[in-house]
Amino acid sequence: MRICRFEHQGRTLAGLYEDDYVVPLNDSEDTCVLDFLPGGSRFEEATQFRSEEKLSISDIRLLVPNPRPNKLFLLAGNYAKHIEEGGEIAAERAETFPYVFMKPPTTTLTNPGDSVRIPGVSPNHIDWELELGIVIGKGGKGIAEADALSHIAGFTIFNDISDRKFRPNPDRKERPKDQFFDWLHGKWHDSSCPSGPCIASAHTLVDPQNLAMQLRVNGELFQDASTAQQIFPVTAVVEFISSFVTLEPGDMISTGTSAGVGNTTQTYLKPGDQIEASIEGIGTLVSPVIAE
Amino acid sequence: MRICRFEHQGRTLAGLYEDDYVVPLNDSEDTCVLDFLPGGSRFEEATQFRSEEKLSISDIRLLVPNPRPNKLFLLAGNYAKHIEEGGEIAAERAETFPYVFMKPPTTTLTNPGDSVRIPGVSPNHIDWELELGIVIGKGGKGIAEADALSHIAGFTIFNDISDRKFRPNPDRKERPKDQFFDWLHGKWHDSSCPSGPCIASAHTLVDPQNLAMQLRVNGELFQDASTAQQIFPVTAVVEFISSFVTLEPGDMISTGTSAGVGNTTQTYLKPGDQIEASIEGIGTLVSPVIAE
Repeated sequence: MRICRFEHQGRTLAGLYEDDYVVPLNDSEDTCVLDFLPGGSRFEEATQFRSEEKLSISDIRLLVPNPRPNKLFLLAGNYAKHIEEGGEIAAERAETFPYVFMKPPTTTLTNPGDSVRIPGVSPNHIDWELELGIVIGKGGKGIAEADALSHIAGFTIFNDISDRKFRPNPDRKERPKDQFFDWLHGKWHDSSCPSGPCIASAHTLVDPQNLAMQLRVNGELFQDASTAQQIFPVTAVVEFISSFVTLEPGDMISTGTSAGVGNTTQTYLKPGDQIEASIEGIGTLVSPVIAE
Repeated sequence: MRICRFEHQGRTLAGLYEDDYVVPLNDSEDTCVLDFLPGGSRFEEATQFRSEEKLSISDIRLLVPNPRPNKLFLLAGNYAKHIEEGGEIAAERAETFPYVFMKPPTTTLTNPGDSVRIPGVSPNHIDWELELGIVIGKGGKGIAEADALSHIAGFTIFNDISDRKFRPNPDRKERPKDQFFDWLHGKWHDSSCPSGPCIASAHTLVDPQNLAMQLRVNGELFQDASTAQQIFPVTAVVEFISSFVTLEPGDMISTGTSAGVGNTTQTYLKPGDQIEASIEGIGTLVSPVIAE
């Protein structure tokens, strides 16, 4: 079961997502999609929902499924081949820990089909990162890896748009931490986090560690991997973050990207491009690219 | 004029903050304090408000004035002496840029008078950081330094509680970025961002660059500085962040701490401590410390 959020005839509704069409859920105007996912007050209703009403995907506007999470966490480096394509050393899980950072949710989350805007202040090194996203259903702290799946409502797709060479004040005198803060600030451009097209319920997408993932730009395949390659599986990511931060319902965690980002071949996004980011069992998140 | 948010007899109200007492504002139940600050729909009403009703500070519970900002940004290093006490090199403003990071707002923001909880996972190096906080009233992008004050609704106090030696998976094989992510994750412990006691309106606190600031732990003075010592004044901070991130009403930016953090003398917070963080024109933010 996949749940989406969409606009239709001026109303914002939740629905069952079926790639080519959506089935609007009853009495779902302005409701939170979390209600229809595991742990939500209307989960049972959603699982049993039957309707003849189908709205073609071309007649609606898809929206970010969960637009105002309290926290939007992302992982930097959770696939060995991606770490290595960046010239760094990957470590086995036992020898490292997840590198977590945040994006500002309200200004980065971008609807499926809406444009990623190339920032005017730094237009030349904007890159893609296809990632599996966790949506927390039941909050908690100190969640054990073995219990983590019961805290997850579902999974979505994130495209962690990244500026590889953000460099404010280029005449600066370089200091040791500059590189890191450039990297971090380069994650915060407006529209840098497309999310969708839906949330696949955790009760039907039961094995998040065996999902094919592909990202194409203008039809050309750049990322082609599987979540089986994650260093830290989703359950370990939840365990790690919740070991020191209380997770709340609706919090979202993007679990890192695989090899094949543009930076490796010096291929960057430009106005007119079209990105298609797909994960098995969830769908395809499409993002046109425009100048800001 | 200073605006606070507080609980009284089961209701959440906004009021004029007068250190020893508050004057509740009419029809302010469950309203956003931003409404009463410059740019807000009830700003004029607040400036002209007169009432005989005074509630003693001991009869109310102060709350975080602005509890659900879309973004909670903080600066790492904006006072030369603090940078130098950490063993790093401070740069003149023209030669550097603001180092900005984020905290998760809902789990770190902590009411005035509520406890900072020493995290069980890393209890031994928890430190204070007294900081002047900006509250954005009018959003925008590409805000020029000369216009920045007109986007600021007011100022508050933040205590950027920081874990100086967070080190998950101590048996790990050290990699170059470990140190940075430990530092960043060490900013995210629950209750690590006391905020209050009020927001001083930007129309009365007109010179944010000449405010005395002191932090005491158990009565002992540790930080004693002035916002005049900031490398980047508040207007430059707003200019910098809004050069690449759209600021929204209610966004908050903490502008860095001065010299005198505990780490310099290996003095860390422990259960039973009491922190008093004061900034001229705003007030004193009191935080007891307890074990988690």
